[in-house]
Amino acid sequence: MSQPALTIASLLTDPSLKQACHRWLRGGRYRLEYLGATPDPVRELERRCDSFDVVLLQQGAFPGEAYGELVAQGLLLPAVVIGEVNGRTDYHEAEVHLPPDQLEQLSYSVDAAVSRFLRRGLSSAPPAPASVPSPALAPQAGWGLPSRIKDRLGYLGVFYKRDPSLFLRNLPEQEREDLLASLERTYRDLLLSYFRDPAAANQAIESFVHTAFFSDLPITKAVEIHMNLIDDFSKQLRLEGHKSDFLQDYRLALIDVMAHLCEMYRRSVPPDLPVGAAIAEASTPMDSASSWG
Amino acid sequence: MSQPALTIASLLTDPSLKQACHRWLRGGRYRLEYLGATPDPVRELERRCDSFDVVLLQQGAFPGEAYGELVAQGLLLPAVVIGEVNGRTDYHEAEVHLPPDQLEQLSYSVDAAVSRFLRRGLSSAPPAPASVPSPALAPQAGWGLPSRIKDRLGYLGVFYKRDPSLFLRNLPEQEREDLLASLERTYRDLLLSYFRDPAAANQAIESFVHTAFFSDLPITKAVEIHMNLIDDFSKQLRLEGHKSDFLQDYRLALIDVMAHLCEMYRRSVPPDLPVGAAIAEASTPMDSASSWG
Repeated sequence: MSQPALTIASLLTDPSLKQACHRWLRGGRYRLEYLGATPDPVRELERRCDSFDVVLLQQGAFPGEAYGELVAQGLLLPAVVIGEVNGRTDYHEAEVHLPPDQLEQLSYSVDAAVSRFLRRGLSSAPPAPASVPSPALAPQAGWGLPSRIKDRLGYLGVFYKRDPSLFLRNLPEQEREDLLASLERTYRDLLLSYFRDPAAANQAIESFVHTAFFSDLPITKAVEIHMNLIDDFSKQLRLEGHKSDFLQDYRLALIDVMAHLCEMYRRSVPPDLPVGAAIAEASTPMDSASSWG
Repeated sequence: MSQPALTIASLLTDPSLKQACHRWLRGGRYRLEYLGATPDPVRELERRCDSFDVVLLQQGAFPGEAYGELVAQGLLLPAVVIGEVNGRTDYHEAEVHLPPDQLEQLSYSVDAAVSRFLRRGLSSAPPAPASVPSPALAPQAGWGLPSRIKDRLGYLGVFYKRDPSLFLRNLPEQEREDLLASLERTYRDLLLSYFRDPAAANQAIESFVHTAFFSDLPITKAVEIHMNLIDDFSKQLRLEGHKSDFLQDYRLALIDVMAHLCEMYRRSVPPDLPVGAAIAEASTPMDSASSWG
């Protein structure tokens, strides 16, 4: 199929940001539609919300309350917010943040935004189809996958599949290096804010973990990124005549990243068949009954 | 199917160990056959290797060279060795070690032994079906899943599925507590040997990670086990008037565990369909062409 898989509404206004995002979302999987030049982009998004799968926002481009009307109407879409990680929420709590110096990860952030949105929608959905919807659940209706993405992704079940063409090992050499350098910048943000600004650190952790997951980053590579950065910090501190012992505390950051990533993988292993049943099923056509003990 | 899924050859000789293993392998999934009472148990295993899926060994029950003949003939089976974690290998490198005070994890160790064996077999198999087998690969033939387990598990592909009935959350209350207490003992062994005996620590790490994986242990629970044990150590050291700062170094052990567990989960996520293709496939029956942007 040559049709784009995801239609993205872009509310970016900064021209260089637009250009960079366009570059990192090339390929057949995305169709970008720019609403930033319309008289009232948020209003335009509101009007045509139903024709988009994902929205791309620029931090601070519109006043904070601009998205309030969308939220009030339950018009929620998976969202990527381009801007510094500062721990604040622009649109809704399942949005994904990506700093402008890390746009190499934009495809991964788009996947992460859809994945987070789906999970969020599922976790706030009424517990069983037969149950009577409680009034308390009504304000969360927007999470009930109301957009057209519901119909399309609904069939895939709980899990949004990863795209192997985005896996680190499947990228051309130069893109692989770009992505790793970008991930290093994310991890650097994470370390710098880890003890100073936990909310910002959390956004950076999520950004790192999402890209690590969707790029199928080998775990040793994540550990390596941590060690190299700590090594750099340590050298710099010693050059400046400072102590560097406290850097050991940053092992907590790595534990945090590992725990998040591990949990993300854990939840992505599909519900399994019981081993016995699976073996029985697989063996039926060729094992004679006598080979069973 | 009421037939047992796995037939286990037990070479245990210690009566209380036999009894305990029998207790922890109850249920319909296993059929235990005791060879320990035959005149020459290893010889008996050699003779009937083909009728077993897994072998249960007792560390030190037979001289170290007893299994050499099996290995020489390429008679390899997934193996669980009951005994202290000491970093030594009894039978072959894919064997799984479990100390006798942690037998609550025996079912998980059996699954781990099969899983490790399958992976080991696959990683040493000739790279492509069409390639000419090189003589260098010949001594590894035993890893080529030669036993009947090959025919039965081969159909499941690379991954040995987890059994949800073994998941922590699906266990009865008392068994859940037993398993957690057992995991704590494994983690304690791991910490105690971490800096002193890396080979033993590795076996303990693998034992912990296998059970965590096959019991679908929430990641926060693994972190909690670490923190509780470090807390206990710290209190005890302070009571005895010692410093406890060095305990921070044990964060490296937790990073090690997380990295292992994360990598195990990562490799268990099945090869995915490209997102675009999956969406297109799922949407074909119900989306009209016009809804594609």
